[in-house]
Amino acid sequence: MAAVKSDIEIARAATKKPIAEIGARLNIPSDALLPYGHDKAKIGADFLKSLGDRPDGKLILVTAINPTPAGEGKTTTTVGLGDGLNRIGKKAMICVREPSLGPCFGVKGGAAGGGYAQVVPMEDINLHFTGDFHAITSAHNLLSAMIDNHIYWGNELDIDTRRVSWRRVMDMNDRALREIVNSLGGVKNGFPREGGFDITVASEVMAILCLAEDLADLERRLGDIVVAYRFDRSPVFARDLKADKAMAVLLKDAMQPNLVQTLENNPAFVHGGPFANIAHGCNSVIATKAALKLADFVVTEAGFGADLGAEKFFDIKCRKAGLKPAAAVIVATIRALKMNGGVKKEDLGAEDVAALTRGCANLGRHIANVRKFGVPVVVAINHFISDTDAEVAAIKDYVSHSGAEAILCRHWAEGSAGIEELSRKVVELADSGVADFKPIYGDDLPLMDKIEAVATKIYHAGEVTAEKAVREQLKAWEDAGYGNLPVCIAKTQYSFSTDPNLRGVPEGHVVHVREVRLSAGAGFIVAITGEIMTMPGLPKAPAAERIFLNDDGLIEGLF
Amino acid sequence: MAAVKSDIEIARAATKKPIAEIGARLNIPSDALLPYGHDKAKIGADFLKSLGDRPDGKLILVTAINPTPAGEGKTTTTVGLGDGLNRIGKKAMICVREPSLGPCFGVKGGAAGGGYAQVVPMEDINLHFTGDFHAITSAHNLLSAMIDNHIYWGNELDIDTRRVSWRRVMDMNDRALREIVNSLGGVKNGFPREGGFDITVASEVMAILCLAEDLADLERRLGDIVVAYRFDRSPVFARDLKADKAMAVLLKDAMQPNLVQTLENNPAFVHGGPFANIAHGCNSVIATKAALKLADFVVTEAGFGADLGAEKFFDIKCRKAGLKPAAAVIVATIRALKMNGGVKKEDLGAEDVAALTRGCANLGRHIANVRKFGVPVVVAINHFISDTDAEVAAIKDYVSHSGAEAILCRHWAEGSAGIEELSRKVVELADSGVADFKPIYGDDLPLMDKIEAVATKIYHAGEVTAEKAVREQLKAWEDAGYGNLPVCIAKTQYSFSTDPNLRGVPEGHVVHVREVRLSAGAGFIVAITGEIMTMPGLPKAPAAERIFLNDDGLIEGLF
Repeated sequence: MAAVKSDIEIARAATKKPIAEIGARLNIPSDALLPYGHDKAKIGADFLKSLGDRPDGKLILVTAINPTPAGEGKTTTTVGLGDGLNRIGKKAMICVREPSLGPCFGVKGGAAGGGYAQVVPMEDINLHFTGDFHAITSAHNLLSAMIDNHIYWGNELDIDTRRVSWRRVMDMNDRALREIVNSLGGVKNGFPREGGFDITVASEVMAILCLAEDLADLERRLGDIVVAYRFDRSPVFARDLKADKAMAVLLKDAMQPNLVQTLENNPAFVHGGPFANIAHGCNSVIATKAALKLADFVVTEAGFGADLGAEKFFDIKCRKAGLKPAAAVIVATIRALKMNGGVKKEDLGAEDVAALTRGCANLGRHIANVRKFGVPVVVAINHFISDTDAEVAAIKDYVSHSGAEAILCRHWAEGSAGIEELSRKVVELADSGVADFKPIYGDDLPLMDKIEAVATKIYHAGEVTAEKAVREQLKAWEDAGYGNLPVCIAKTQYSFSTDPNLRGVPEGHVVHVREVRLSAGAGFIVAITGEIMTMPGLPKAPAAERIFLNDDGLIEGLF
Repeated sequence: MAAVKSDIEIARAATKKPIAEIGARLNIPSDALLPYGHDKAKIGADFLKSLGDRPDGKLILVTAINPTPAGEGKTTTTVGLGDGLNRIGKKAMICVREPSLGPCFGVKGGAAGGGYAQVVPMEDINLHFTGDFHAITSAHNLLSAMIDNHIYWGNELDIDTRRVSWRRVMDMNDRALREIVNSLGGVKNGFPREGGFDITVASEVMAILCLAEDLADLERRLGDIVVAYRFDRSPVFARDLKADKAMAVLLKDAMQPNLVQTLENNPAFVHGGPFANIAHGCNSVIATKAALKLADFVVTEAGFGADLGAEKFFDIKCRKAGLKPAAAVIVATIRALKMNGGVKKEDLGAEDVAALTRGCANLGRHIANVRKFGVPVVVAINHFISDTDAEVAAIKDYVSHSGAEAILCRHWAEGSAGIEELSRKVVELADSGVADFKPIYGDDLPLMDKIEAVATKIYHAGEVTAEKAVREQLKAWEDAGYGNLPVCIAKTQYSFSTDPNLRGVPEGHVVHVREVRLSAGAGFIVAITGEIMTMPGLPKAPAAERIFLNDDGLIEGLF
C-alpha cells in the first residue's frame, strides 16, 4: 500500500482552475471578481447588491456530535458534500469559516478540510489569505487606541479606566499578552491601567463582520459596541469615540466574501471565523446569503458539536439573518462514538460494538435536538480505515431506530465518489419540503429564560444557576433595551454538560452561569459557563519550529 | 478659478489601466503577475529569479533638503519624474516605499505622492494594500510569542527576562503600548516582565525584508536577529528559538514587490517602508533590483533630507546591495528654503529673496554632500503658487554658482508636462557616465570612526561624543564580528545637527551618541542621537474621527 499522503501534499498536487473560471461557473462577471493571486478572489459589493431579487437556493447545515480527540471531520464532510452534490449534477457551493493564523503555529494543523475533501490553496487559506483577519485586527485595535487616546487627552467622556471592557487583539497564540498593565512610563504614555489581548477570532468585530448584512449595517453595529463604562456606570459606545466610521473603512474589503475552490474545482466561499464559544461560530451572513443566490444548494458548517454549533447557527445566525435551513447533516465517526462510549484513545483500533452502541446515545440526542428546530436530519459516518463492518452496521441500526438514516461516507479517501449516497439523501431531504425552521426560544422571552431554554431543551440540564449579580446584570440589560437579543452560551464543546469529562448523554446536570457579557454590536448576550480561553498559548514545542519553506519555496510542516 | 482638488479626489478621478496591461508594458507575463484586485499585483518570485542576466537600467535617487513644516514634496517629485521620463520617451519606472496604515488615522494624510503626481489606488496603498505590513507584524509577533513561550516552558536557553530586547509591534499609533508589563495574572500566563510595542515600520523585520536579496537571504537574516541576552550576557538569536523559518513562511508573499501605476499609467513598485531613523528608510532592494532589470531608468527616493536619507541610501542600501546610482535629484521648495532662512510659516506667502538666499545654504550643503558619494546632482524646485519670479531666479542663481542646475518643476499641478526639463537633465546626467559611486566610509573602519565620518563629513559636526558604555558596546560588537557593518544614525531630520531647531547650515556642533543598538539581521549598527519615538501617539482629534465611507462606499477623509 502506498504511503498515505498528508493534507498539504494532496492540496499541492491539486489541479486548480483559474479563479475567474470558478467565478464564471457561478455567472459572476469578471469585473465583479477581485482576484487575490490566480486562485482566490473577493466578490465585489456592487455585484452582491445586484443579486437581491434572485430566488434562494437550499441551505444545508453540517454539524457534528460532541468532538473528541479522535476527530469527527466536520469541515472535511462539508467540503466533501459540496463536491458530492456537484458530482450528482446539482449546482452547489460550500460556505465555511476562515481559519485563524495564530493557532497554525501552535498545535493544530490547518482548517481547510482534509484528505481528498479540501479547499485550496490551503496554505494561503490557513495563513494570511485575503487579509480579512488582519483588517479585523486593525479595526479592533484602532478602537482600542482611540479609547486610551481619549483618556490621555482629558477623558471628556468620563470613562472609568477600571471599567474599559474593550481589550486589544492579535492573531497569534501569545499567553504573555492575556493580562498586561499598559500606559506605563510616565506622563507621555497616558494613565496606567489593566488591559490585555484576545486572539483576533474572539474580537466582537469578527462577530459583527459575520452577522452584518452590508456596509451600512456593519457601521451601525460597530457604533453600537460598548467599550467601557463611565463612573456613573453608563455605557460608552464606539460611536461616542467617533471610531465606528473609520473602523468600517478598514473593514470595507474584508466584508466581501472570498471565493476559492475545492480539490474538485467546485466553488467555495471561505469568509469570517468567529469563536464558537463567546461568539456564534459560523461563516459570514453575507457569504451565506450570496451563495444562496448563486447556487441551488449551499452547504455550510457551524463550530463544535450540534449542542453549541447548530444551536447558535439556528438561534443566532438563522434567526437574525432570516435564513431557513432545509436539512442538516450530523457528522459522526465510529472512533469518536466509541470514545463517547468510554473507550480510551489508545484502544480505538480494536472493534468494540458495545462501546459504540453506548456512545451512539450522544449522536441520538443531537439528532433529536436538531429536529427540535424543525430541520430534518441525516447522519454522515465519516469513514476511518479502522472501522469494521459490524461497527458500521451497529451505528446504522441505531440511527434507523431514531427514524433517521446513517450513511457511510468515504470522501476523505475518495473525494466526491465516496459521498454520492449522502448527497442524494441530502437532496431528497431538502427537496421534500419537510423543513419548518423555528428557533428554540422566542425573542420576547426574558434573557435568563432564554438561557434556561437552551440548557434544558438542548443540554438536558436539570437547572441553571447564577449569582445574584449575573441575574441583576441581565435584568439591567433588559431595562436598557437589550432584552430581545438572543443568548450565546459559552460552554465546553466536549460535553452536553459544563464538565468536559462527561461524555455521552449527561442528564439533569446543573449549568452555572459564571459571567455574562454584552456584545451589543454583534447583537447577543454571552453567558459564560466555566473557563473560557480567549487567548491561547503555544505548546512547549510549537508547530512553528517545524514549519519552513522548502528549496522550491513551498511551505512544509503546515498540515 | 476652480477649487483645488484634494489628492483623493484627483486619485479617484484617475483612469486606471488594468494592472495586467501595466505589467505587459514591462514584459511581465501574466502568470508571473499575481493580481490583488484589478489595480495591484505582486511579481512572482520565479519570474524575478529569471531576470538575473539582463543588463541593469540607471538608478536615480530623489532626495531633499532638510524637511520643514512647509513641505518639500519628495515622493511627489519621485512620481512626477517617473512620469516625466516616460513622457520624453524613456522606459522608466519608480520605486517608492509603502506607507504605514497607523499614522493615516493620526495627523498625516496619505503618502502616495500628491496633486497630479500620485501612485494609485491611493486608498489601498495607504491602508492594507497587499498585506505586506500585516505579514511583517505577524512574523515579528510570532518571534515575540516564541520568546515568552520559551521562558514559560522552562527557559532552556537561560534568557535573562530583564534583557529581552525584542519587543512586539502593531501598525497603529498607540502610545498606551509603548511600555507595558506583560505575563501578569499568575502561573498560567508566564513570568511578568517589562515589554512594549513599536509601530510595525520600526520592526527589524521590516528592515530585513527591505535589505534581503531573496528568500534564502531573508531566512538567514531572520535567524541572525538578536532577541535577548542570557544571564552571562551572551546573545540569544531568533535561530536559537527555531523561529526564523516559520517567520520566513509568513513573509513569503510580502517579499514579492507590488506593482501599481501612476496617475499617468506608468509602472511603479511600492514595496517596503522601514523607518528612516532607526532603520535605513528606503524601499526594498528586491523591488529596486527588479525595476533595474525591467526599465532603463528607475527613480527611487529615501526618507527625510539628504543628510539622513541619501546617506543611508548610499552607505547602507547601495553599499550592501551593490547598487550604483547614476544621478541624484535634490528636491527643494522656495517655501522650505525660506524657512531655513529664518522665515516663519505664517509669513511664507510674502516674497523674501534675502531669506531665500540665506536658506539656500542648506541646499548647497546637501548638493556638496551628495557629490561626496560620487553622484552627480540636479536640483528640482517643486513649484508652489506663491513662488515669485524673483525667488525662482535667486535659487537658480545660487545653485548655478555651486556648479549644478536648479530646474522649476510643476508636476504637482500639471503632471509630467510640468517636469519635462528636469527629466531631460536627469537623462543627460545619468547617461554622461560621470557617476562614480563610493560610500563615505570603508567597511573596515572601526564603528566609532564610521559614526564620526558621517557626522563630520555629512553633518559638519565638530565632534562626536559618547558615554564609556556606548564605546565599550561598540568595541564588544567589533570583537563579536560585527565591526564590518555600516552604521545607521538616528538623528532629527530637521537639522544637520541633533537640535531640530537649528535650521540652515550649523557647523562644528557636537553629536552625542546616547545609545547604540545592534540590528544583526538587518545588518547595521544603530547609533541614536536624541529622543527617538518608535511608537507614535494619536492627536487630540485624530484623523480617524473624520475618515468614513460615503454613500457610494468610497473612502473620504484620507488625504
